[in-house]
Amino acid sequence: MPFRTPIKHCRNCGAAVVYRVPDDGDTRERAVCPACDTIHYENPLNVVGTVPYWGDKVLLCKRNIEPRWGKWTLPAGFMELGESTLEGAARETDEEAGAQVEMGPLLSVISVPRVGQVHLFYLARLLSDQFAPGHETIEARLFSEDEVPWEEIAFKTVKETLLRYFEDRRRGQFGVYNLEVT
Amino acid sequence: MPFRTPIKHCRNCGAAVVYRVPDDGDTRERAVCPACDTIHYENPLNVVGTVPYWGDKVLLCKRNIEPRWGKWTLPAGFMELGESTLEGAARETDEEAGAQVEMGPLLSVISVPRVGQVHLFYLARLLSDQFAPGHETIEARLFSEDEVPWEEIAFKTVKETLLRYFEDRRRGQFGVYNLEVT
Repeated sequence: MPFRTPIKHCRNCGAAVVYRVPDDGDTRERAVCPACDTIHYENPLNVVGTVPYWGDKVLLCKRNIEPRWGKWTLPAGFMELGESTLEGAARETDEEAGAQVEMGPLLSVISVPRVGQVHLFYLARLLSDQFAPGHETIEARLFSEDEVPWEEIAFKTVKETLLRYFEDRRRGQFGVYNLEVT
Repeated sequence: MPFRTPIKHCRNCGAAVVYRVPDDGDTRERAVCPACDTIHYENPLNVVGTVPYWGDKVLLCKRNIEPRWGKWTLPAGFMELGESTLEGAARETDEEAGAQVEMGPLLSVISVPRVGQVHLFYLARLLSDQFAPGHETIEARLFSEDEVPWEEIAFKTVKETLLRYFEDRRRGQFGVYNLEVT
């Protein structure tokens, strides 16, 4: 279980679980409750965010939380129940940067199997260059391509997405990039 | 909690949890453990699958499991920890249809907020028209566009994906479609 804290107790009845392959034709070990037979599945999480742009600049946020405190990132966070990937990306852009945007198309879908995550980023046109970052952000600032602190980017998925964004901006046409990073 | 069975007990210590907004700046109710302070997050799940094609036909699977027993679907299932979206889609194609494929590009990314899911489908070129469906599939069969049992398709995301596939096949160019279905 390299991803998260192992499940120790059943969410349904509280009994101690055991990790084993269930008897229902499954092929993977799951946390199974010996008392009430509940099978607990653990699956990848989606992180949803945006590339907010203003002229030739993009908006980055300096992280005020771990992991990667003090590093720069695109506004993004865990997708919640009850929202679409696009709605989650818009919500995170508001929460982390306090930025007003018009949402655009999907730009990247990047799997990170090492941590059990999929990161999805959308283009987002900034409607103002005034930001009101939330408590998870030290500073929100606009950067042109040659100003981006490439060595201080918090996550590989953010770096890959920014690289695709600037490449596509130069050629004047945006694609949708499906990648995997280690 | 319209999505899943509520969490009743803490996965860490087994104590009964309470649903409340945590004190860490969060804005949503979570299952919080009053004994050990563990916060339990519940997030959307990814379903990953393929559009396996052979000439002008696509491969559909007749479901041998609930929900939608007996309806037709594309091979797809829940993404697992430790794999990419593409790897998961290939795995499900093997497990559900026993189909040998060469994986192609991403075709659709469809949010289903009502059930807390995101469905991702890839193009996949069939390498053979012989299939060995697994226990979750009654029958795996090839259908041309006018043979597809449109009224017997198990999920809206599958129908939307098939419609985009056949449209794009006619125009000779495949896009990546980001949609939301209710």
